[in-house]
Amino acid sequence: MTLTRRDFSRLAALGAASQLVPSSVRAQSDQKKIGYAVIGLGRIAGHFMPGTRNTTNSQITALVSGHRDKAEKIAAQYNIPAGSIYSYENFDEIAKNPAVDAVYVALPNSMHAEYTIRAAKAGKHVLCEKPMATSVEDCEKMIAACKAANIKLMIAYRCHYEPTNLRAIKLIRDGAIGQVQTIQSAFGFNIGKGEWRCSKALAGGGPLYDVGIYSLNACRYLTGEEPDHIAAYASTIDHDGRFNEVEENVSWTMHFPSGIVASCSTTYGANMPGYFHVYGSKGYIHVENAFVYQGLHLHANLSGKEIDEPNPSKDPSQFQAEAEHFSHCIQNNLEPQSPGEEGLRDMQYIAQIYKAAGINS
Amino acid sequence: MTLTRRDFSRLAALGAASQLVPSSVRAQSDQKKIGYAVIGLGRIAGHFMPGTRNTTNSQITALVSGHRDKAEKIAAQYNIPAGSIYSYENFDEIAKNPAVDAVYVALPNSMHAEYTIRAAKAGKHVLCEKPMATSVEDCEKMIAACKAANIKLMIAYRCHYEPTNLRAIKLIRDGAIGQVQTIQSAFGFNIGKGEWRCSKALAGGGPLYDVGIYSLNACRYLTGEEPDHIAAYASTIDHDGRFNEVEENVSWTMHFPSGIVASCSTTYGANMPGYFHVYGSKGYIHVENAFVYQGLHLHANLSGKEIDEPNPSKDPSQFQAEAEHFSHCIQNNLEPQSPGEEGLRDMQYIAQIYKAAGINS
Repeated sequence: MTLTRRDFSRLAALGAASQLVPSSVRAQSDQKKIGYAVIGLGRIAGHFMPGTRNTTNSQITALVSGHRDKAEKIAAQYNIPAGSIYSYENFDEIAKNPAVDAVYVALPNSMHAEYTIRAAKAGKHVLCEKPMATSVEDCEKMIAACKAANIKLMIAYRCHYEPTNLRAIKLIRDGAIGQVQTIQSAFGFNIGKGEWRCSKALAGGGPLYDVGIYSLNACRYLTGEEPDHIAAYASTIDHDGRFNEVEENVSWTMHFPSGIVASCSTTYGANMPGYFHVYGSKGYIHVENAFVYQGLHLHANLSGKEIDEPNPSKDPSQFQAEAEHFSHCIQNNLEPQSPGEEGLRDMQYIAQIYKAAGINS
Repeated sequence: MTLTRRDFSRLAALGAASQLVPSSVRAQSDQKKIGYAVIGLGRIAGHFMPGTRNTTNSQITALVSGHRDKAEKIAAQYNIPAGSIYSYENFDEIAKNPAVDAVYVALPNSMHAEYTIRAAKAGKHVLCEKPMATSVEDCEKMIAACKAANIKLMIAYRCHYEPTNLRAIKLIRDGAIGQVQTIQSAFGFNIGKGEWRCSKALAGGGPLYDVGIYSLNACRYLTGEEPDHIAAYASTIDHDGRFNEVEENVSWTMHFPSGIVASCSTTYGANMPGYFHVYGSKGYIHVENAFVYQGLHLHANLSGKEIDEPNPSKDPSQFQAEAEHFSHCIQNNLEPQSPGEEGLRDMQYIAQIYKAAGINS
């Protein structure tokens, strides 16, 4: 259990950090807020930007978009000067903008590598959405570029900074359910036609890249271990034009060094609210809506004692927490809890799952 | 989907049968009840025997046990004459007992084959507990022996005759959740020390043989398909003497010909109430406590319409239903819905899972 406990220490420290940062930062209110340039003004940026408003250490100071009109509207809401709106063409000029300390990469997956590397070259820290990239090679290039530029790289794994997920980890590490034996986790949704996430070139792959990665990552942080064996199947049932490039379903099973086994599913063909169920020798932990922005619910049996903990937090609290954490790391020269290496590992496991399922990734 | 619909027709017919048998049998109240010899007076026989009391077509007429005292006490409760109590040594004399039409094999797994074959040679029909045996070869011998003796063989898959499971199957076949994409199922418990189920010689294997088989079988009746690919891992974490011969945990994933994928877990190291979750393009079906004797609960979302159906039935209603079905088949010369071939198939898949997990079975 050495690995488990060590890994947890990281997470626990992080958990503490994510909750303590606001007050510690408030105590240093003279410290300059970290200014973020948001790259890509799509759905998820629409959660991140309001999330920063609730922090005391982060603010939006620039926008990068291919749609000037859209960018100008958002700029007005965040008091961003016209000179701090960039296109993808003139993005590199951001290097000269002292109001920008970091970028938030909220682009389609295949563009994460390019913009992370360009931001690093511009001397800006990078908070990059998951999945980190569309290939292991790209993840490695991103890490190397950020190291070379001496800037920080964090992958936006919201759940690493989310109280209900951290509560589940802490219960497990504290032995509240005894020795963990098995984990089941799933996450999926019924995707619409024409989504960029159904383009292999843009997304890298199907639901595993987008939502299955939450189950994969959860099994790792819940066990505090790295899987040593992975088996998987993938399939496409609905031939309605959505799945010409990426698979519809993936089911996989993992074995961890301690002997814990996990079984997971993901789909783009059914609404499957994210959950994880962890079963141990002395009880279990169920978290429903485990990977969404709000409505998380933990139910557990700890040696016969039932606990029921709905999480009242509302969106965008998870985005607030991840921004606070990264800004805190930048301000204090700390390594983020979910660095590039964390995203790289998931990408390596995704490649293994695809290989096991017979998909060329 | 031809297979699916055909298989369902069998199950639906059965579902109807299991519910209609009592009244149809009542209508023929002059028909002689089927007399059962119960072989093995352990835990599960203690559910089956009271179950027959609620039927109109089945009764306990003989007992087979190594413990004469225990057998005599039970015989008194069921008005069984002393001459109808057998030991394992003189069991074959049951051939001469006209009060015995069938046997119920409720012995440790490794003894199922011997007593099924001996019962067949004695000219008695056989209702055999699951798992059917401890090897594919034994299952084949059992089927051959029953065919040669022209007697009926049914494997006691309770869930095939259980209303909540049948309701889930019907909802799926009726298209209430659209195209099924993924299934997750699990079942396990924390086994005590010294149980015969931890003996490889008696049990054949670990939790997969005993409780994991419910998830395996459920994935087959829920899809109406046979898995064409299976991958699996097994492990033992607790080295406390319980798992010297059989594994503690198994996690496996299956691919079905239509493309449906399933992920399943079983354990002897954690209390993991049996469930299945079926996700389709138009909704989902969750059944909790899916494989136990009572307390089954179906919750579903059917194209946005939520349904919640707790099953009020109490133990031993499931044993009543399976006894009624088998007796009905004997009385009317019908093939049971869960014949030996059904048990053989699960044993073949169990062998595949063990092979995939690197266990010599």
